[in-house]
Amino acid sequence: MLNVGIDIGGTKIAGGIVDPDGAILDRRRVPTPSDPQALADAVAAMVADLVTDRVVHAVGVAAAGFIDASRSVILHAPNIDWTDEPLRDELERRIGRPVTLENDANAAGWGEYRFGAGREVRDMVMITLGTGVGGAAIIDGELLVGGNGIGGELGHIRFERGGRPCGCGQNGCLEQYASGRALQREAAEIAASGAFGAGLAEVRTAEGIVPAAAMEALIAAGDAGALEAVHRVATALGEACGGFQAVLDPGLFVIGGGVADLGERLLSPVREAYATALPGYGERPIASFAIATLGNDAGLIGVADLAGGRV
Amino acid sequence: MLNVGIDIGGTKIAGGIVDPDGAILDRRRVPTPSDPQALADAVAAMVADLVTDRVVHAVGVAAAGFIDASRSVILHAPNIDWTDEPLRDELERRIGRPVTLENDANAAGWGEYRFGAGREVRDMVMITLGTGVGGAAIIDGELLVGGNGIGGELGHIRFERGGRPCGCGQNGCLEQYASGRALQREAAEIAASGAFGAGLAEVRTAEGIVPAAAMEALIAAGDAGALEAVHRVATALGEACGGFQAVLDPGLFVIGGGVADLGERLLSPVREAYATALPGYGERPIASFAIATLGNDAGLIGVADLAGGRV
Amino acid sequence: MLNVGIDIGGTKIAGGIVDPDGAILDRRRVPTPSDPQALADAVAAMVADLVTDRVVHAVGVAAAGFIDASRSVILHAPNIDWTDEPLRDELERRIGRPVTLENDANAAGWGEYRFGAGREVRDMVMITLGTGVGGAAIIDGELLVGGNGIGGELGHIRFERGGRPCGCGQNGCLEQYASGRALQREAAEIAASGAFGAGLAEVRTAEGIVPAAAMEALIAAGDAGALEAVHRVATALGEACGGFQAVLDPGLFVIGGGVADLGERLLSPVREAYATALPGYGERPIASFAIATLGNDAGLIGVADLAGGRV
Amino acid sequence: MLNVGIDIGGTKIAGGIVDPDGAILDRRRVPTPSDPQALADAVAAMVADLVTDRVVHAVGVAAAGFIDASRSVILHAPNIDWTDEPLRDELERRIGRPVTLENDANAAGWGEYRFGAGREVRDMVMITLGTGVGGAAIIDGELLVGGNGIGGELGHIRFERGGRPCGCGQNGCLEQYASGRALQREAAEIAASGAFGAGLAEVRTAEGIVPAAAMEALIAAGDAGALEAVHRVATALGEACGGFQAVLDPGLFVIGGGVADLGERLLSPVREAYATALPGYGERPIASFAIATLGNDAGLIGVADLAGGRV
Repeated sequence: MLNVGIDIGGTKIAGGIVDPDGAILDRRRVPTPSDPQALADAVAAMVADLVTDRVVHAVGVAAAGFIDASRSVILHAPNIDWTDEPLRDELERRIGRPVTLENDANAAGWGEYRFGAGREVRDMVMITLGTGVGGAAIIDGELLVGGNGIGGELGHIRFERGGRPCGCGQNGCLEQYASGRALQREAAEIAASGAFGAGLAEVRTAEGIVPAAAMEALIAAGDAGALEAVHRVATALGEACGGFQAVLDPGLFVIGGGVADLGERLLSPVREAYATALPGYGERPIASFAIATLGNDAGLIGVADLAGGRV
Repeated sequence: MLNVGIDIGGTKIAGGIVDPDGAILDRRRVPTPSDPQALADAVAAMVADLVTDRVVHAVGVAAAGFIDASRSVILHAPNIDWTDEPLRDELERRIGRPVTLENDANAAGWGEYRFGAGREVRDMVMITLGTGVGGAAIIDGELLVGGNGIGGELGHIRFERGGRPCGCGQNGCLEQYASGRALQREAAEIAASGAFGAGLAEVRTAEGIVPAAAMEALIAAGDAGALEAVHRVATALGEACGGFQAVLDPGLFVIGGGVADLGERLLSPVREAYATALPGYGERPIASFAIATLGNDAGLIGVADLAGGRV
Repeated sequence: MLNVGIDIGGTKIAGGIVDPDGAILDRRRVPTPSDPQALADAVAAMVADLVTDRVVHAVGVAAAGFIDASRSVILHAPNIDWTDEPLRDELERRIGRPVTLENDANAAGWGEYRFGAGREVRDMVMITLGTGVGGAAIIDGELLVGGNGIGGELGHIRFERGGRPCGCGQNGCLEQYASGRALQREAAEIAASGAFGAGLAEVRTAEGIVPAAAMEALIAAGDAGALEAVHRVATALGEACGGFQAVLDPGLFVIGGGVADLGERLLSPVREAYATALPGYGERPIASFAIATLGNDAGLIGVADLAGGRV
Repeated sequence: MLNVGIDIGGTKIAGGIVDPDGAILDRRRVPTPSDPQALADAVAAMVADLVTDRVVHAVGVAAAGFIDASRSVILHAPNIDWTDEPLRDELERRIGRPVTLENDANAAGWGEYRFGAGREVRDMVMITLGTGVGGAAIIDGELLVGGNGIGGELGHIRFERGGRPCGCGQNGCLEQYASGRALQREAAEIAASGAFGAGLAEVRTAEGIVPAAAMEALIAAGDAGALEAVHRVATALGEACGGFQAVLDPGLFVIGGGVADLGERLLSPVREAYATALPGYGERPIASFAIATLGNDAGLIGVADLAGGRV
């Protein structure tokens, strides 16, 4: 049975027809309209375009933000100006089929669990390191949704009491220490400090920013400053995973998002920091760490599969 | 159908016959032997004594420590010197009936979920504030056991990076800031500092310890120093609950253990600190807080009920 | 969630939008085309016409005949010339949504079980007395489908060894003794015999047939011959139900179809014959008998509900 | 996990410890006491003797007769003088463990389904041809228990209207045409008739009975009269299976009991008669026939396995 998966991002909407093995048979992409009604129209048009003469079972839509426990209302979304938006009903009215919503990080976690890096385990945590941090937890084969629908927000666990302010209204959130933006911040600070050589300082812009491409080149070249920036981010992530282990006890952590392109250069210091921060280390089983395998498609694939199981 | 619940504590073993409504029909109590074989013998004798002429379905045993995913082996226990102890098999061999093991804090959480403060919700976190901190999470009606069997260790989430050392080998664990022992520590520090009046200083022993009974009396009398100690513990607990909300998103936090006897004097500052530490506060549903209602019987009742559902 | 139910009869196709309480919100009716492709086209057009701007979950289609275990292929249908017809795929391709097929008598039985005369029981047998006999069995809340998909063919249990020939290739089938056609046959025989008065003889046509309307009038008037015809049919049905009790042990028999309009005039002798034919009578609980309450809509409602639960 | 299975027969009680693969690890046998209390005592003693130092999960008890829907009360039993006997409670009180009751033919059917001739199918009918006939139906992997607990009484479906009287109060029951006793009856009639040669007449006793051993020898020797007796029984059974197919639509018929020792000599004419009596023959899938493989242990093994799944 085929399902449609739609992933609403900050700049583009990606959609696809997903088969029962998680393969994308057909796909579409359009820019994300800023107006909620226009966005619902665009999603409906994409679904209609994807379905055409196929037999489609259900439609799943992933979006950033807090989604209510019934998986129908966006309580609050960061990218689009939404508060208590009944997106599911808006979409169902336009599409004429059952629609289910899911948080984008949860959808990506489910995708990796079902068809990607996590398909051999039943207890898994996924952390998506994009500009910010997305989290998802699979507990005994079930997606942790939460009593209010907004569990698994792993990027906003407190990493440092009284630490860096976060857009969520708190301070010290993990997202401020382990994310794409955090990596850039560490790089800029190292460049400004002059420590670890001149590599980062040479590539930074007049605004003090280290461009992502230059950062990647330095890391590949083994530049000490760039590697130090990675090490700081990895250390924060690994220490946080020690805490997630205490609470959720997964068998596997899957790391995704753009920062995960660093691969073993990221995972190796993450594992080290995890070991130093794990309560009861030495007296308990420890988790494995793996890089996500579905890339940007994880959310689209995951939400299509979730939709098929929910309706 | 009746089940037997056994709660192995550091100093005593409590056991009871539990009916399907969570009522204890008969109970026993003996000191905890220090030798593992003697302990297994004592549990088996207690079960035999409780069963006599009753029709008993299953036997559940709660104990502190890490229990493996198959609920049969104690990987590590703090109170008794156990490592990789196949306690379930030892007990089944003596008892001749199916036995299931569970972590004592998980058992207490399950008891409160099924028959106590949490019986109206499906997503609940229980924090037991005894000498240390015990944690349990109920996710969509299921006990979070974890991929390795040792999830829900909420007392060892890091509260302060680089903070107080903990017996688990880490530092900054919540248990060092919010527990019975932490309350005594805060009281002792306040007494030593001389701030908040002389109340605590007057009752402390030559070793600098504030006895529990004296502490209770001071709190009841509204002593400023004693209340400050409570406030510090409550603040730590409330802030940690903000993080648990981000990860687990319960509808209800249930606070149990001896410190929970403080009731609203504890919960009120906990709620305040929770609100200040909750990511996205104002844009999301918040959880309720309640004091546990089953007291010391929660673990015994909970593990009996779990046993009935597992065999 | 709304579902579409379609009931393909020998002369007309009835369709409707069915809500979760079994209410029909909108309905359509067209003649049944004799060509299979034209029939699939007509069903698809009816579904499209019913859906329009509604959010529809699934589509169920009821038809007479043997349906395979996967609920997708009509193995053999009496009304339309179908053999191994992949009707589900034909319909899904036209409709673009998941479709499930069900035997029409099974669908009617499910409808009565969920929303009609059987909604208080979990084990029920429905017998639809139309021109022929349709049967359905609900076992512990599940529709008996059968290992090959064609169980519950209660009309073709043998009522009399070496008895009347049946269209199914057998002889003595219940359908030849208890059905609308059997009622007409008994009436015609009684009229020809001259026993039980002249009532039936006076209304029969030159071909020896007793028209249904005249039959009804005679029954209402208490004509001895007409009542004898009913009694013979009821006796056969009741005796057969004794056997169904031995095999299926329902708590309730629901009698539907046109003959069931006779109400208690039918049920009363059915209960009597059942009691005389029940193995172990007096030493076992007995079943109740009730007239179906959903009329001709039972199949449409039942197949819509089944569809909602299957996809 | 080990379970105890007990099979209460008319003359002996057989019991065993059954492992999860259906193997009997240890077994006991005692004569069946005629007094109900003595019988319950004997079963309890056998269970205690079997359990000794083993870890046993549940206890299942199979007995002939009508068992109520809660599987706790014997409504009526043919062998022992029981009416509304609360056997489960009597046994649980003595044994101190959960006990489940099951009809002996159902237990045997479940045993063959799980571990014997039926382990490859999900829809199966078992017919046990002992002195009488026992029946059991497995529908989509579940034992058909019936709304009142007494379904699957396949031996008392009517084979011939107005036929031979049966002990159940009816006449024409299948049990009078296809069972061990029916085979003896046919043999005696053939012997008396003188048709089919003198073989049967020569071995019959003064009372006109053909002893079982002599019957077997004649069948093995190809005696025309003995084979005719088998043919008559097989024909009745095969014709009845055509009706069971219409109602239950199994993929497999399993034939057990002493008469099934005839093997293919029995099955071959059964299949022929089945084909001639199947409604819609040629237009539907047909069932396979197989001889049971667990022999007299089927009930003991089946009821142990059922017990494990029920408590």
